[in-house]
Amino acid sequence: MLIVMKPQASEEDIRRVCRKIETMGYRAHPMPGAQRTAVGITGNKGPLEPEEFEILPGVAEVIPVSKPYKLVSREVKNEDSLIHVGPADAGVTFGGRELAIIAGPCVIESREQAFAAAERVRKAGARLFRGGAFKPRTSPYSFQGLGEEALRILAEVRREFGLCIVTETIDPENCDLVEEYADVLQVGARNMQNFSLLKRVGRSPRTVLLKRGMSATLEEFLMAAEYILSEGNYNVILCERGVRTFADHTRNTLDLSVIPAVKRLSHLPIIVDPSHGTGKRDKVIPLARAAVAVGADGLIVEVHPEPEHALSDGYQSLSPDQFEKLMEQVTTIAGVLGRTVEGRQ
Amino acid sequence: MLIVMKPQASEEDIRRVCRKIETMGYRAHPMPGAQRTAVGITGNKGPLEPEEFEILPGVAEVIPVSKPYKLVSREVKNEDSLIHVGPADAGVTFGGRELAIIAGPCVIESREQAFAAAERVRKAGARLFRGGAFKPRTSPYSFQGLGEEALRILAEVRREFGLCIVTETIDPENCDLVEEYADVLQVGARNMQNFSLLKRVGRSPRTVLLKRGMSATLEEFLMAAEYILSEGNYNVILCERGVRTFADHTRNTLDLSVIPAVKRLSHLPIIVDPSHGTGKRDKVIPLARAAVAVGADGLIVEVHPEPEHALSDGYQSLSPDQFEKLMEQVTTIAGVLGRTVEGRQ
Amino acid sequence: MLIVMKPQASEEDIRRVCRKIETMGYRAHPMPGAQRTAVGITGNKGPLEPEEFEILPGVAEVIPVSKPYKLVSREVKNEDSLIHVGPADAGVTFGGRELAIIAGPCVIESREQAFAAAERVRKAGARLFRGGAFKPRTSPYSFQGLGEEALRILAEVRREFGLCIVTETIDPENCDLVEEYADVLQVGARNMQNFSLLKRVGRSPRTVLLKRGMSATLEEFLMAAEYILSEGNYNVILCERGVRTFADHTRNTLDLSVIPAVKRLSHLPIIVDPSHGTGKRDKVIPLARAAVAVGADGLIVEVHPEPEHALSDGYQSLSPDQFEKLMEQVTTIAGVLGRTVEGRQ
Amino acid sequence: MLIVMKPQASEEDIRRVCRKIETMGYRAHPMPGAQRTAVGITGNKGPLEPEEFEILPGVAEVIPVSKPYKLVSREVKNEDSLIHVGPADAGVTFGGRELAIIAGPCVIESREQAFAAAERVRKAGARLFRGGAFKPRTSPYSFQGLGEEALRILAEVRREFGLCIVTETIDPENCDLVEEYADVLQVGARNMQNFSLLKRVGRSPRTVLLKRGMSATLEEFLMAAEYILSEGNYNVILCERGVRTFADHTRNTLDLSVIPAVKRLSHLPIIVDPSHGTGKRDKVIPLARAAVAVGADGLIVEVHPEPEHALSDGYQSLSPDQFEKLMEQVTTIAGVLGRTVEGRQ
Repeated sequence: MLIVMKPQASEEDIRRVCRKIETMGYRAHPMPGAQRTAVGITGNKGPLEPEEFEILPGVAEVIPVSKPYKLVSREVKNEDSLIHVGPADAGVTFGGRELAIIAGPCVIESREQAFAAAERVRKAGARLFRGGAFKPRTSPYSFQGLGEEALRILAEVRREFGLCIVTETIDPENCDLVEEYADVLQVGARNMQNFSLLKRVGRSPRTVLLKRGMSATLEEFLMAAEYILSEGNYNVILCERGVRTFADHTRNTLDLSVIPAVKRLSHLPIIVDPSHGTGKRDKVIPLARAAVAVGADGLIVEVHPEPEHALSDGYQSLSPDQFEKLMEQVTTIAGVLGRTVEGRQ
Repeated sequence: MLIVMKPQASEEDIRRVCRKIETMGYRAHPMPGAQRTAVGITGNKGPLEPEEFEILPGVAEVIPVSKPYKLVSREVKNEDSLIHVGPADAGVTFGGRELAIIAGPCVIESREQAFAAAERVRKAGARLFRGGAFKPRTSPYSFQGLGEEALRILAEVRREFGLCIVTETIDPENCDLVEEYADVLQVGARNMQNFSLLKRVGRSPRTVLLKRGMSATLEEFLMAAEYILSEGNYNVILCERGVRTFADHTRNTLDLSVIPAVKRLSHLPIIVDPSHGTGKRDKVIPLARAAVAVGADGLIVEVHPEPEHALSDGYQSLSPDQFEKLMEQVTTIAGVLGRTVEGRQ
Repeated sequence: MLIVMKPQASEEDIRRVCRKIETMGYRAHPMPGAQRTAVGITGNKGPLEPEEFEILPGVAEVIPVSKPYKLVSREVKNEDSLIHVGPADAGVTFGGRELAIIAGPCVIESREQAFAAAERVRKAGARLFRGGAFKPRTSPYSFQGLGEEALRILAEVRREFGLCIVTETIDPENCDLVEEYADVLQVGARNMQNFSLLKRVGRSPRTVLLKRGMSATLEEFLMAAEYILSEGNYNVILCERGVRTFADHTRNTLDLSVIPAVKRLSHLPIIVDPSHGTGKRDKVIPLARAAVAVGADGLIVEVHPEPEHALSDGYQSLSPDQFEKLMEQVTTIAGVLGRTVEGRQ
Repeated sequence: MLIVMKPQASEEDIRRVCRKIETMGYRAHPMPGAQRTAVGITGNKGPLEPEEFEILPGVAEVIPVSKPYKLVSREVKNEDSLIHVGPADAGVTFGGRELAIIAGPCVIESREQAFAAAERVRKAGARLFRGGAFKPRTSPYSFQGLGEEALRILAEVRREFGLCIVTETIDPENCDLVEEYADVLQVGARNMQNFSLLKRVGRSPRTVLLKRGMSATLEEFLMAAEYILSEGNYNVILCERGVRTFADHTRNTLDLSVIPAVKRLSHLPIIVDPSHGTGKRDKVIPLARAAVAVGADGLIVEVHPEPEHALSDGYQSLSPDQFEKLMEQVTTIAGVLGRTVEGRQ
């Protein structure tokens, strides 16, 4: 259920509605919008009586929500969410007319490697830098990242290059550390239904980048996001990164149709990862173009200063030159759709 | 094995190589190229001795072919195949700089419906018209098409609107009839491994549009095309139309990564069907944009004059107005890639 | 819609109902049962008026059929169908208390090979012999079977060993030839939605073994069977042979849950192919045991006198000794379920 | 690499080998076997020199391990692992001749419900009791379990009925609590690649039941187990619970072929969950029979005293009467394979 307040409703009107909800034993989610505030209710088992709220001062209307996900739904919030990352006067916004591009190496290997990558991706127009500090790896014997040392390098990258930092957090405890350094907490595909982690990042002041699980349906994907919003963190960016199918010509099958499907059901921004989505370097640029053409709000791309020497995922990382080519091409495609790319004119 | 002739090799040189191959009990496939002719060998069980051919006059080199598919492979023919459909002086070419767009209703319902669709898709720039005469339907009790009556209507459409005709053939016997009327014989996804049909269309003078099977790997897809080429018909256009996965937000999962994957391995053109690929009208335009952005050589799109009254697949058919919008958008995207759309300036 | 006749209804009563249906422009399918006859109606677009039939003499009741498939449905025929193959006094019955086992090589290579296989599988208790004469192969360059020569060898096997013959037919024209020799026409997985072939075998006097397509849903599988029954051939045996998934430890993923699912919805017998279902010799016996335990009505197993020299599918064929072991084990499992295996006491 | 000690090697010999490994900066995994001890090495990046170890006293041979997983591999330990749960003189062993059956409700709802279920499953022969205290649920608004209260009820069930307790742990921190109460820590399918949790249970004194992820390949499944063993906990039981495919007649597709595939590659026991594997009550018994027939070492089954009133998964829970029927049937099937079921004679 969603309670939509009148445009002229006062702060006190809104607080009164929230208190009413809480005394009934439920949870209130005030969501301020451009025109007016809406208040979502969660925690109720069955349907509620709209009349109980309609009589309160400042309430415009009460809308039943038909989907299993509520706070992420367009039923609850019709206009696109704009998620701002970084300093208010600089930074980057996801979900608006401008596309946001995240780029960097799979894993932070050294200060040199990170700086070399950062310099090039910054120059090409990326405004966010990705790089793994804690890497979930299929094998316990594979390199699992430099840990906090990598986080410190990432903080230096931010200072030096003015890039916002996106890095993965792998469990609730680890999140305490990562959120000290990162602008955006990435929840990886394997953790999309790690509900303890979802709840933890839902209580973080940082923006969350939530990757779709390898075999997640659209509903499960949106429900995972709902976990984060239901804890109070509304700054969630979705990410399609390919799903697992029988097809063996790419590592995963990039499901671009999920972009318009998400846009129809949810107000959250969604970006595409063509690097993991294909797992093959020569497919990254074509699929990046396609992702922008289909309507994605941004990209996350693996770029390594020397892909052939990468410790992880080298076969899917672009060289800096290839990344520049990608940026040029997606900028023109974005132009066709009346959009621009942040960091490029 | 592939025998590459010298640029100055004579017709007699080529015939001599072919005769040699045939006396060894194999099959020769001379493939004239812009610069020089190559001759493919099929039918051999194991490797052949290159020396046997290298000594013949006019032979430049002998190349072993490592893939299970041969004639469709770039190893055998490096430059892109240009497949021309329709009259030599008019018509449409697949695989070049210009994109070719096929549009029309799922199934021909009447002369009125076909003409109404044809007029609009022609005006929007389509140069090929699709329409089912014989429809493979999951249920024996569903409408299976008007049969030869539909073929006659399609022939009228060609005469009246100058559109090339694309329609499905469903078995070898049926092919005798369909090839009298159609410019392009469509082999549907369910028949991608109907090898009797593949052999039959491989002996047809008509171009073949081969749709990828619902769970076909890339190799199986190319092998199905190889069946057609190995019978002597080199005019094959491939078509991605979505594969079957666990995902339930679209009818099929459109696998756009197969486009660059095909381009890398094969010289054949490949187009995309965003209508069957998504099964939902509101996804057709975004995925059509993405298909062009990823590098497809064309599109096949369902357009019905009145989608809400269609006898089949109405929920995925565009209205003529929506199709015009699609054409505008894909034309601009094509421009970004330095390509144009036939029928539009 | 299904019209159930009274137990004492006369032949003339039944004919009258059928005539009535046909004058309405539909198709009548009289299905004699142990107690009484039912008449199915197909070809109607919308619902019919039950009253039109309830008033006719001999009619007990009129039942609407809710599924898209009708003749294969338990709504239309509640008791299990018993499909008898071979001479009335000998032969084998599918769908009853006794399991029927089909065994033999993937492809008939020679009279010697076929006889060697037949002797051993007969001795181990198989009562039906499988062997490919026309093989649908992914590659046009792979061995495609000995054709009619193989059919003649199969006829000899029947004469010599008293085994019923199961072999694949690959297109409608080919069916004319194959039905002269075979007791059971196999429709392969790749042809499950080759509707021309389904209609053709639906008009054959032979029993049909219909294999599930590689990515067929249960409904599509039953609809394919419906095509055959709707043409008048009610002697259809279904076969699960594995579906295509992401899993790579077997060639296909054998979906044994489809057995109880089919049993619930349909009266047709269903058997399992653990050879194609796994594609690996060491998995065949365990999965054969599981298939019988889950409730399958029989098995079809690849057995080659010398698997290591097989021209096709050798890696999944059992040796005759392994097949004997399989027969012993499945006979004991069958016993637990109160069933026996034909050919073994 | 695996260092196999001579049967007569002394404790000191073994310690010397371990010290040598550790001074090289790697990790030593001594694995005592019936005849002799082997020592696994992990943590090395590249191949090691066998000679460095072959010269040490008590070393029989040095074996390179070719698989990415090592400690779970049959290359490293050939004989089946026997995993004992519960008191040494009572309790249950997984992986031997006796099958172990785990049964109980999806989620603990109350003391009454738990006791009612426990009494009946105990009587039918189950020796382990399952019941969710912390439930990972797709929706944040679904009932997530009674938490520690449920754990206390489970402890009472153990005391009262002598059943070993199996319950899920959902994150590393939660594991501290759950391992105080449970005999077996379940890691759910959604957490199969939650590597933080895998490492945590790898340091637990409790046995771990590791469920296969929804789209996990066999290699990923074994690698997940390797995480646990590599932390020192060798008491791991694998569990197949169905994978995600296009098939829609069951909730998941139970992949029984993974049982013989695991048995071939690994020494760990593997059981089957026919409840989640099918998601439909009427499929549970047939698939349980099939699981035992294929060679599984046990079953985990949802049983609720009143399935129609269950708070979670009621549609897939058996009633106690149905569970008794299941136990009877699987006991007979087990007998055919020369196995028995613990708790039944």
